Amino acid sequence: MANQAEHTAMRRAIELSTRATWTTPPNPDVGCVILDAAGEIAGEGWHERPGSPHAEIVALRAAGERARGGTAVVTLEPCNHQGRTGPCSNALLDAGVARVVYAVADPNPTAAGGAAHLREHGIDVESGLLADEAAAANARWLTPFRSTRPFVVWKYAATLDGRSAAADGSSRWITGAAARADVHRLRAAVDTIIAGAGTVIVDDPQLTARDGDAELPYQDQPLRVVVDSSGRTPEHARVRDESAPTWIATADEVGATPDGRVDLPKLVAALYERGARYVLLEGGPTLAGAFFAAGLVDQVVAYIAPALLGAGPNALVGAGVTSIDGAIRLDTQDVATIGGDIRIIATPRPSKE
Amino acid sequence: MANQAEHTAMRRAIELSTRATWTTPPNPDVGCVILDAAGEIAGEGWHERPGSPHAEIVALRAAGERARGGTAVVTLEPCNHQGRTGPCSNALLDAGVARVVYAVADPNPTAAGGAAHLREHGIDVESGLLADEAAAANARWLTPFRSTRPFVVWKYAATLDGRSAAADGSSRWITGAAARADVHRLRAAVDTIIAGAGTVIVDDPQLTARDGDAELPYQDQPLRVVVDSSGRTPEHARVRDESAPTWIATADEVGATPDGRVDLPKLVAALYERGARYVLLEGGPTLAGAFFAAGLVDQVVAYIAPALLGAGPNALVGAGVTSIDGAIRLDTQDVATIGGDIRIIATPRPSKE
Repeated sequence: MANQAEHTAMRRAIELSTRATWTTPPNPDVGCVILDAAGEIAGEGWHERPGSPHAEIVALRAAGERARGGTAVVTLEPCNHQGRTGPCSNALLDAGVARVVYAVADPNPTAAGGAAHLREHGIDVESGLLADEAAAANARWLTPFRSTRPFVVWKYAATLDGRSAAADGSSRWITGAAARADVHRLRAAVDTIIAGAGTVIVDDPQLTARDGDAELPYQDQPLRVVVDSSGRTPEHARVRDESAPTWIATADEVGATPDGRVDLPKLVAALYERGARYVLLEGGPTLAGAFFAAGLVDQVVAYIAPALLGAGPNALVGAGVTSIDGAIRLDTQDVATIGGDIRIIATPRPSKE
Repeated sequence: MANQAEHTAMRRAIELSTRATWTTPPNPDVGCVILDAAGEIAGEGWHERPGSPHAEIVALRAAGERARGGTAVVTLEPCNHQGRTGPCSNALLDAGVARVVYAVADPNPTAAGGAAHLREHGIDVESGLLADEAAAANARWLTPFRSTRPFVVWKYAATLDGRSAAADGSSRWITGAAARADVHRLRAAVDTIIAGAGTVIVDDPQLTARDGDAELPYQDQPLRVVVDSSGRTPEHARVRDESAPTWIATADEVGATPDGRVDLPKLVAALYERGARYVLLEGGPTLAGAFFAAGLVDQVVAYIAPALLGAGPNALVGAGVTSIDGAIRLDTQDVATIGGDIRIIATPRPSKE
């Protein structure tokens, strides 16, 4: 049984694990706290980005000799594979920790086995402490393993009164430069960007991740997917340019709903087959509504401009909600000011039905 | 000329002046910093509520003997009248300050004259330092003096996607208990609450300020005003009960627009004549839009629930904006988490026209 100090340390590790969101993909978000033999915090760490040290390594370095005889508290089972940084299980053994407490078992077959390896070497290993909370903080990485579908983030920009464009359709720019640069950091984190054909026709977005200052494209661009029931994406749409791969997903190719639209569960399954694990859903409002109606949105990233329009298209349309009791309720994860705009990151609660 | 320390102190005094929003009315929001003879901060204060000491008194008490030979930096001209707390000008003289720097002259004829009184007693007095910033922080109190109309706050509650109710009209409750209690604190601060007849018919609100825990009404209730072009407020509407005074403002009584609606500039002028200085505009969306179209909204208090509806009435309708360039842009003053909801307080920028 984990003691109170380990509980507290795990809460802290979960908090640490969320520090590097948007730089860790495709790696998991992991946090680690090392307690010394007396149960005092000796070191902390989180995984920052691919190629950087794992959370355990950062925390062990911070703890130094105090790790000996102590306990490693970590949100995900320590890895057992020789990646860019060497197995964490061996690092924990080398540091002389006596006990390892982790929240969530590693579902990744190439990295799992850390707990068994540690036990074989005489370490006292406990799993499952605050597993739900830790899993929620790492949902972006865990969802594809658990549901064999990508983690889907809906991003939108709107005014305080929820309009995504003015009455005449103009929408450049609702949010400021800082928020737009933030969107590019999010685009750079995902492996797939989805937009509807309507948005492509009206706004002609390039849907690439570009550096905010120089507007330079990043090296690895996400796959661009246009949800296009009837193949009406214009031939010269920017989304078809050479800067990134593009898939025009038609109802013919993916599968159709009874009313002839692209079947979204089939689309998401097809994306998973193509390797998608972290998908960013951008405009438009109707496509987003269909994703919600299908229960396929895992996270919302809202950029709210302190502005009012009083007319124009709504940010979300047709999510299948008819009464306030059926509202899609979200748990707020983060509220931040980005330039003059407000960014809210939130997670839909499981529906009551 | 004010020196750098006085500049810094005035910025701090302006910040302090905003601390007690919603408890100071009908008094002004004032902040004060006392610098000692060496220019170091010796005391700080702000006015908390009617009957409590003025900002200068709080700051002088904190400074004690260090005020002697020092400088009082205050956002509003020190008062010269014997109210519940005695004139601040005399308190400054008694404390032996050598210099007084204030931002905004007191427009209140019964309290003004503090600067002249201080000068007569040999104090070095300077006015106008950061006057625009200080006036903005005290706009709720200054607007009625400067524009002979009440300061108008539009309060609304909506989902993240800007819906004020679901498709079937249900809206109880979009926001949580903490946000609703916060609205009652705002209602208790104002002298007038306005709602449209449509909202009264659909939601039947009582429009009184009640204590969040016990739902007990406060002693002094604001005037309730129903904007009701054609006198359709139901006879047994709760807004007509005995708990507070009520005015059903019809187009016949107030004056009509060409399309038969209540003329809002005339309504606001009539409210000022009746003594209104701080008006809270609550639902519905169309009435709020008309207030914006008439340029009569001074502040927005938005309660945003982390929820999505994808259908249902919009929070704001018909503000007269047609393109993104014409958007009503706001300056955000405060973003706070109230229970599970997000409260945004913002001020419309002067329009570009």
